[in-house]
Amino acid sequence: MKQVEVGIIMGSSSDAPIMRQAIEVLKKFDIGYEFSVVSAHRSPQRMFEYAATAEERGLKIIIAGAGGAAHLPGMVAAITTLPVIGVPIKSSNSLDGWDSLLSIVQMPGDIPVATMSVNGARNAGLLAVQILGTSNSTIRQMLAALKKENNDKVSKQNETLDQIA
Amino acid sequence: MKQVEVGIIMGSSSDAPIMRQAIEVLKKFDIGYEFSVVSAHRSPQRMFEYAATAEERGLKIIIAGAGGAAHLPGMVAAITTLPVIGVPIKSSNSLDGWDSLLSIVQMPGDIPVATMSVNGARNAGLLAVQILGTSNSTIRQMLAALKKENNDKVSKQNETLDQIA
Amino acid sequence: MKQVEVGIIMGSSSDAPIMRQAIEVLKKFDIGYEFSVVSAHRSPQRMFEYAATAEERGLKIIIAGAGGAAHLPGMVAAITTLPVIGVPIKSSNSLDGWDSLLSIVQMPGDIPVATMSVNGARNAGLLAVQILGTSNSTIRQMLAALKKENNDKVSKQNETLDQIA
Amino acid sequence: MKQVEVGIIMGSSSDAPIMRQAIEVLKKFDIGYEFSVVSAHRSPQRMFEYAATAEERGLKIIIAGAGGAAHLPGMVAAITTLPVIGVPIKSSNSLDGWDSLLSIVQMPGDIPVATMSVNGARNAGLLAVQILGTSNSTIRQMLAALKKENNDKVSKQNETLDQIA
Amino acid sequence: MKQVEVGIIMGSSSDAPIMRQAIEVLKKFDIGYEFSVVSAHRSPQRMFEYAATAEERGLKIIIAGAGGAAHLPGMVAAITTLPVIGVPIKSSNSLDGWDSLLSIVQMPGDIPVATMSVNGARNAGLLAVQILGTSNSTIRQMLAALKKENNDKVSKQNETLDQIA
Amino acid sequence: MKQVEVGIIMGSSSDAPIMRQAIEVLKKFDIGYEFSVVSAHRSPQRMFEYAATAEERGLKIIIAGAGGAAHLPGMVAAITTLPVIGVPIKSSNSLDGWDSLLSIVQMPGDIPVATMSVNGARNAGLLAVQILGTSNSTIRQMLAALKKENNDKVSKQNETLDQIA
Amino acid sequence: MKQVEVGIIMGSSSDAPIMRQAIEVLKKFDIGYEFSVVSAHRSPQRMFEYAATAEERGLKIIIAGAGGAAHLPGMVAAITTLPVIGVPIKSSNSLDGWDSLLSIVQMPGDIPVATMSVNGARNAGLLAVQILGTSNSTIRQMLAALKKENNDKVSKQNETLDQIA
Amino acid sequence: MKQVEVGIIMGSSSDAPIMRQAIEVLKKFDIGYEFSVVSAHRSPQRMFEYAATAEERGLKIIIAGAGGAAHLPGMVAAITTLPVIGVPIKSSNSLDGWDSLLSIVQMPGDIPVATMSVNGARNAGLLAVQILGTSNSTIRQMLAALKKENNDKVSKQNETLDQIA
Repeated sequence: MKQVEVGIIMGSSSDAPIMRQAIEVLKKFDIGYEFSVVSAHRSPQRMFEYAATAEERGLKIIIAGAGGAAHLPGMVAAITTLPVIGVPIKSSNSLDGWDSLLSIVQMPGDIPVATMSVNGARNAGLLAVQILGTSNSTIRQMLAALKKENNDKVSKQNETLDQIA
Repeated sequence: MKQVEVGIIMGSSSDAPIMRQAIEVLKKFDIGYEFSVVSAHRSPQRMFEYAATAEERGLKIIIAGAGGAAHLPGMVAAITTLPVIGVPIKSSNSLDGWDSLLSIVQMPGDIPVATMSVNGARNAGLLAVQILGTSNSTIRQMLAALKKENNDKVSKQNETLDQIA
Repeated sequence: MKQVEVGIIMGSSSDAPIMRQAIEVLKKFDIGYEFSVVSAHRSPQRMFEYAATAEERGLKIIIAGAGGAAHLPGMVAAITTLPVIGVPIKSSNSLDGWDSLLSIVQMPGDIPVATMSVNGARNAGLLAVQILGTSNSTIRQMLAALKKENNDKVSKQNETLDQIA
Repeated sequence: MKQVEVGIIMGSSSDAPIMRQAIEVLKKFDIGYEFSVVSAHRSPQRMFEYAATAEERGLKIIIAGAGGAAHLPGMVAAITTLPVIGVPIKSSNSLDGWDSLLSIVQMPGDIPVATMSVNGARNAGLLAVQILGTSNSTIRQMLAALKKENNDKVSKQNETLDQIA
Repeated sequence: MKQVEVGIIMGSSSDAPIMRQAIEVLKKFDIGYEFSVVSAHRSPQRMFEYAATAEERGLKIIIAGAGGAAHLPGMVAAITTLPVIGVPIKSSNSLDGWDSLLSIVQMPGDIPVATMSVNGARNAGLLAVQILGTSNSTIRQMLAALKKENNDKVSKQNETLDQIA
Repeated sequence: MKQVEVGIIMGSSSDAPIMRQAIEVLKKFDIGYEFSVVSAHRSPQRMFEYAATAEERGLKIIIAGAGGAAHLPGMVAAITTLPVIGVPIKSSNSLDGWDSLLSIVQMPGDIPVATMSVNGARNAGLLAVQILGTSNSTIRQMLAALKKENNDKVSKQNETLDQIA
Repeated sequence: MKQVEVGIIMGSSSDAPIMRQAIEVLKKFDIGYEFSVVSAHRSPQRMFEYAATAEERGLKIIIAGAGGAAHLPGMVAAITTLPVIGVPIKSSNSLDGWDSLLSIVQMPGDIPVATMSVNGARNAGLLAVQILGTSNSTIRQMLAALKKENNDKVSKQNETLDQIA
Repeated sequence: MKQVEVGIIMGSSSDAPIMRQAIEVLKKFDIGYEFSVVSAHRSPQRMFEYAATAEERGLKIIIAGAGGAAHLPGMVAAITTLPVIGVPIKSSNSLDGWDSLLSIVQMPGDIPVATMSVNGARNAGLLAVQILGTSNSTIRQMLAALKKENNDKVSKQNETLDQIA
């Protein structure tokens, strides 16, 4: 069984459709993950324990998604020394994502949260992979392959365009 | 010695000049308070304990001020069942207070934070007094007197204006 | 018959679907309330009288919801000494709720309005309950039970997630 | 003695330096005015009476300036049927004037406030003059003369520029 | 035949559904109006002539609606000395109305535009009526009646609410 | 075969429906163009080469559309000395176009991007035509004809309005 | 004497310190220009004539700077078929430049304004040069030299940094 | 000599005072770094080469700071597979940092930039340390010590406050 290296948490199960995009990336890179609801507001004790024990449970990176006054990524970063990646969620009760974004990115000194774009869970997964790649050359080669793949897609898109007049 | 009924906390001692405006109001109404730095990000354990023990220590209301990605009011509200009053601070590293305001006011369901205006610590003190006044008619009379005082100031201001032409 | 302790008012009957979320909470805690349309702009005299007589009619807290240039919560707070909870409504003619939020939260000194998130009427009801709880230990126990309930829901949500890979 | 036709009010005497710019214009057009502090929040009864008696006292137009959660112009417009001109003030406790602007301009149906630019008290005075001009051809001629004057200033500014190379 | 006193113009016929709300009000008050498309950007000469001849054609007030970089109200105000009422339109190519609002309200000194809320054409009509009312007591009585009517609607709305529990 | 004078590029083929509006204008003015996907982020080498060889391939102007953190127009402008016209795209993952707009318009000194409105690809095409018109009087005559056409449409729109009452 | 090819206009002489940055660039490239105050709001007739005669007077490009509700660039673009470059000015009475920016960039279809960054007059000058360069290879060579110069400055800046540790 | 593991780059030497805050952190953790000006706009070729060779030169992480339309972090992330940390700089020509923030954080899929708060270079340094800590337990212990240090500072701050009344 794979070692779980990345913990993916979210404030509510309603964030799951977005946050699963991070899982897709981790699967593609064959990286072990765990996925759960950990609400800073509804389950603060669980959040506290999740963050406090993350390192000893072998996690290397935590990805946290939340909407509105999004406190989960920042609070987890306050407790653990692992890198925390924050995903602002544009939930129905948010101000179009502005509240989530500012609540996550504007962290004070010494408590960084690596903030992604609004709903940018796929990129959160990829940043986690890049971080693991800093000590793993196989991953770095796979990342280079993905870059090539994306570049090739641009060429493909151009083949279907009616380009010159 | 007075019973401490209102706990005033802030994320950093640099917020003290603003937050002391809440103290001025509490003193005027002769209400016991305590005042301390409790950072959600730098001292999460202290924050947790502060909030978890607030009720048993006799506190009735918590006023929490914070800037930037301001998580203190919301996290305290997640842990205690006491009413929490949040004061967004316009700190030097904030986006003119927009980040602090949205991080505090846009709380999810079941975890209210009574949000004041940016730097509105004086009003936080006054709301605390009003809350205590719901079960104390002496306080309500003092609040009525303050309203009258403020109204009289308007009359005073008009005496010094050159009003008609 | 229950004593009416919380007055819930709104600028227009079109705000009722949102504002009824406050009622749900009050019912759950078995707290007496009244519910009516009181427009600062269309019925200023009614608003004035509502606020001026609220305390003598036995109300302890007023919850006021309004959209656009939302003046109802602040004007009521100008007239009564009771705590006023403001709910910014994201109405069809508002700028996505930004106007309602700023019109309610940015109150001047000595006239606090306890501002909730945009459309956050449920939290307004809960804050009212918390305020009543400052002098009522039964309510405080019920609030603690609600917190536990919400915490348990997080555990429930996790049971349905496919968590580890 | 001149008939007072324009009432200029403001939420606080600290707004006077801005609001006096409206007076300058009215003086230039020899229009009678009165000038006073009428706070919707600190003196709601005075505000109510000011607005309710404005028409019978002979006022034709009300100019109201306010900052932050600026309710004065809209509340006066709720009470009187006279045209109300609102001036958003960029006060020290405002969010750079955004709160004042939105609190004044986003009025609901049937309660218009003729909103000026942030700190635009001079234009408030001029709009009042234009309104009086709708039934006074002398004023209209003076307004045309002012337009010519402003146009001539552009020519003057050009004489001092080093224009061609 | 009625004297045309109010000119209603808009940048495009696609603004007509919103701008017709001003007409409804003028009809209710039996005030003569004209209604046309006058684009500052597509028909600058027509705009210029419209504004320059408005006064001599007997117009007393101009209502101008426009979206996006909305220049029509301000340009008309630059040319005529009549009061100009601006309506920011939230068109499909606008930034949710923020661009229209700022382009209309932030006018420089000596060129006021009486700005309404986003899509607030009904209020534009009513402000025009109020302006005409400054020299017409019949209109003022009708305005007072409308206020009463609106106030009565609040009472009606309350009759259908299930108010007390 | 026509000389290709305008290069139209976009970050993704999903931007094509918007960007084709630029092509419509170029076709109307019989100007040669090429159209392709050139992503600054997914195909940086292609972007680099596209910009670096644009002038020698005979292009005179580049139109670049992109959404979100829109780097394509600015990066192309960093590499080529040709005028670059930027079109902010309001894509599904953008903050309503604000991110695209600011990422394109706020360029540093010496690297201008001629920024259009959000989704303003039609205007990008027209600006390209105007630029070519600076050295081509036939184009200038066609531009004057288009202005007349647009002006005539305003007259047409007025014929269908029910204008006077 | 040099042919005047670029007209630089601004709404007020207070904008001159910013707008002169465009002149510096034109001088460096030895391009003839004229510089004047042309206010859309205070001198609409002058603006109209300036724009209407620009082409016949030999101008090829117009650069227009304005603050607040900035209508000058868009109105000039409505009248002339020459390319118009707009510079949003962050004036003291503007909302930090947001109003100027949106008033200039959000132009409707068929009336493009090539919008620069807030206060970006230097880039306006450079874009004018690039436009002239589309039909002038000497200018294109000078532009390439400027790019090289800027690139060299980066190398220079690095020489003075203490880079490695 | 220490292995250089972190590359710190910035768009201009004027960003150095902010970006040096990242260096302070790296020095504290004894991590090798290099520091240079690499402008995406003024030196695109240098930027390209810097990013393309970063991995082979032994870098593990790149920290990139930029202001205004900040393209440096995103472009570097487009070219390298290393994790890129972006620092939005609030430069004098920026819209209070909003432009820098959105230009950096709103990256498209597959090109993450780990975005810090506005001017948050210290946190960029710390996130780099956390990333290196994922494969280095000594660093993780030092990070835990820093957390304790910060926590102790809160206790210290409280000793100097006059806390109870």
